Amino acid sequence: MIKVAVMGHGVVGSGVVEVLSQHVESIAKRAKEEISIKYILDIRDFPDSPFADRFTKNFEDIVNDDEVKVVAEVMGGVDPAYDFTKRCLLKGKSVVTSNKELVATKGAELLEIARENNANYLFEASVGGGIPIIRPISQCLAANDVIEIAGILNGTTNFILTKMIRENMSFSDALSMAQKLGYAEKDPTADVEGHDACRKICILASLAYGKHVYPQYVHASGISNIALEDVAYAASWGGVIKLIGQVKKLDDGTLDITVEPMLIEKNSQLANVDDVFNGILVRGDSTGDVVFYGKGAGKLPTASAVVADIIDCVKHLKARKYLYWTDGDGSIVKPYEQTVYPIYIRVGSTLDKQQVFDKVTSLFRNARSIVRTNAPENEFAFVTDDMTVSEQMNALAALENDGIKVLSKIRISDL
Amino acid sequence: MIKVAVMGHGVVGSGVVEVLSQHVESIAKRAKEEISIKYILDIRDFPDSPFADRFTKNFEDIVNDDEVKVVAEVMGGVDPAYDFTKRCLLKGKSVVTSNKELVATKGAELLEIARENNANYLFEASVGGGIPIIRPISQCLAANDVIEIAGILNGTTNFILTKMIRENMSFSDALSMAQKLGYAEKDPTADVEGHDACRKICILASLAYGKHVYPQYVHASGISNIALEDVAYAASWGGVIKLIGQVKKLDDGTLDITVEPMLIEKNSQLANVDDVFNGILVRGDSTGDVVFYGKGAGKLPTASAVVADIIDCVKHLKARKYLYWTDGDGSIVKPYEQTVYPIYIRVGSTLDKQQVFDKVTSLFRNARSIVRTNAPENEFAFVTDDMTVSEQMNALAALENDGIKVLSKIRISDL
Repeated sequence: MIKVAVMGHGVVGSGVVEVLSQHVESIAKRAKEEISIKYILDIRDFPDSPFADRFTKNFEDIVNDDEVKVVAEVMGGVDPAYDFTKRCLLKGKSVVTSNKELVATKGAELLEIARENNANYLFEASVGGGIPIIRPISQCLAANDVIEIAGILNGTTNFILTKMIRENMSFSDALSMAQKLGYAEKDPTADVEGHDACRKICILASLAYGKHVYPQYVHASGISNIALEDVAYAASWGGVIKLIGQVKKLDDGTLDITVEPMLIEKNSQLANVDDVFNGILVRGDSTGDVVFYGKGAGKLPTASAVVADIIDCVKHLKARKYLYWTDGDGSIVKPYEQTVYPIYIRVGSTLDKQQVFDKVTSLFRNARSIVRTNAPENEFAFVTDDMTVSEQMNALAALENDGIKVLSKIRISDL
Repeated sequence: MIKVAVMGHGVVGSGVVEVLSQHVESIAKRAKEEISIKYILDIRDFPDSPFADRFTKNFEDIVNDDEVKVVAEVMGGVDPAYDFTKRCLLKGKSVVTSNKELVATKGAELLEIARENNANYLFEASVGGGIPIIRPISQCLAANDVIEIAGILNGTTNFILTKMIRENMSFSDALSMAQKLGYAEKDPTADVEGHDACRKICILASLAYGKHVYPQYVHASGISNIALEDVAYAASWGGVIKLIGQVKKLDDGTLDITVEPMLIEKNSQLANVDDVFNGILVRGDSTGDVVFYGKGAGKLPTASAVVADIIDCVKHLKARKYLYWTDGDGSIVKPYEQTVYPIYIRVGSTLDKQQVFDKVTSLFRNARSIVRTNAPENEFAFVTDDMTVSEQMNALAALENDGIKVLSKIRISDL
């Protein structure tokens, strides 16, 4: 019988308790030990919980109890999760988590503390909710060089974009609907501005390339500027707009890693990942493209990933899983201005069509017009070939100087 | 330094050697040991291979060499792979394989021998080629009850169906093309008649439900009877025809497990799995639907899955992985005649439209007409509600008795 503690009794935490108590037998069979919850940490009271006797408000109960071998940290946020995790690991307790913010900002340090104390720090649930992705990348793809990872990593923004694409709903209406349905938080910034997806692609990049990639070095932009006009142009171009977190290794050894809206072709495997679903493509030199798809969030999917990690820790109490990366700094990330990709631009101008066309084609590499039905007379859109971001910026500034207003600029994906 | 042997130097075997020798450093890092190939077993000569000095034609060299800890069996077929695998396991050597035929027919016995000899028998590559699926089902989904698994498990048939759907190519033309491209064998029976997919769904079912499900108890039919007319009706119904291997647990504890062509709706996650790709959907009670997608065959994808298993064996030389099921018999499988599902039928008759409609609706539960453009006057198609297979058979026989010729009958999927 192995005793575990669950820190946090919010959505995921209560799900962990539920999954652990509803699959006692099959979990015991897989873990080769019965697993029992000794403590649930929360500052709130849950007098009606069937586990009311396990609740504590005092972290010291958990960290000082040698009987507790595995701790699930499902509190979220860095403070106090960071301190609690560190102290558990220092005591040789294994810690599993769904806390992407903590893994993305402190992963290298916590993995090193885990290693020094012969404990495991696992975080399958931090990316893709219930979709197995951390373990496949670290194990199954061990015999591959990972060329690229690209994913729809945030369900909230994918829901909003799907509503915009399928039902021609405006961004703000779709956001309100997502909030009403519980898919978006009251303050949706972390989702909508790409911070959540950025943490996740940082975790995947760190895992795949062995060095911690910190979110502060990664260009991340969100979807709040995407207009229905852009959605229409994307369709006429033959694709859809998705918020993609992407990392690929460049020839010079640096990483092209970003989170931003991208135009992706209709026949890409990620184009049909809709609603709150996540889809993650891993391109290996031997396997080719492997795609993982499922619900990227939600109580039970995420909880079941946390519980799978608990089981894995119980099975490896005396061994260590290979899940590790060393510390890194900004030098591993290609400066965003130097990254190279084609773009879509939408502009407005009182100049006539030919004048706009001449300006744009003189400034942007191989710019081609695209059209949409019912476009106003003074609106124009183009797609280009590869350009560095700094070339793009210069060209866009030159357009503005010539009286052509830049309404949108979106990366075109090579997926 | 861990010594391994590779038995078989065909497509997959030579790929295993290639992947092992091209990723020496990263593999050593993950396995925490250097891995070196000591023997390659093949009856043929490969004098020009850079590994020419490792070749042997004598299995005894491998089984009697205590230095060899892990053996990759990539010969295919049951004989002599079964005997070789058994003898290696009996000596305490771990065995990894891509041999779905052997796992599907002898898995329970070999897993038991592995257990008794404290060795591992791993077979990630036997299903889905380079797509990680065995490990995710056994580990990540440990905290789930698996409700259903459904997959496009055979790339050859999926390629043929894709050509029929997208290019209106006939079955036999598409098969010829697949053969020319190396996607289908000279004798394509195992692929085209569903035997290959049947072995794979048996492996997945055994893993998910803990008892060996032998192919001989499983209804498997292939795609050689699918006509372009059916493809057209499927499109007008709003879907596509795919060869699906499927298993779900019924309320009485038996398994509804089959391989057969099915109509699946266009918006199903499996509908867009095209060409030689495989897609596997796992429905868990906590995770919901998780889909795995990628190349299901091919030299390097399959080889990289074999190598991932080798690495796993090296990491667990003294421990056992949880990958196990007990023996089973036919009683776990719901007799096919008693399984329940809706169907699509296409019939031909010289009777008039109303007469055919009256007959069909009197015999099939809630039958509705579907149409296609350019259908000949004497062709009719319908979809029904749920019926047992024996009810379907009786109704189809009654139609034939009344002078209505049954041209096709295809299961409608609930995916």
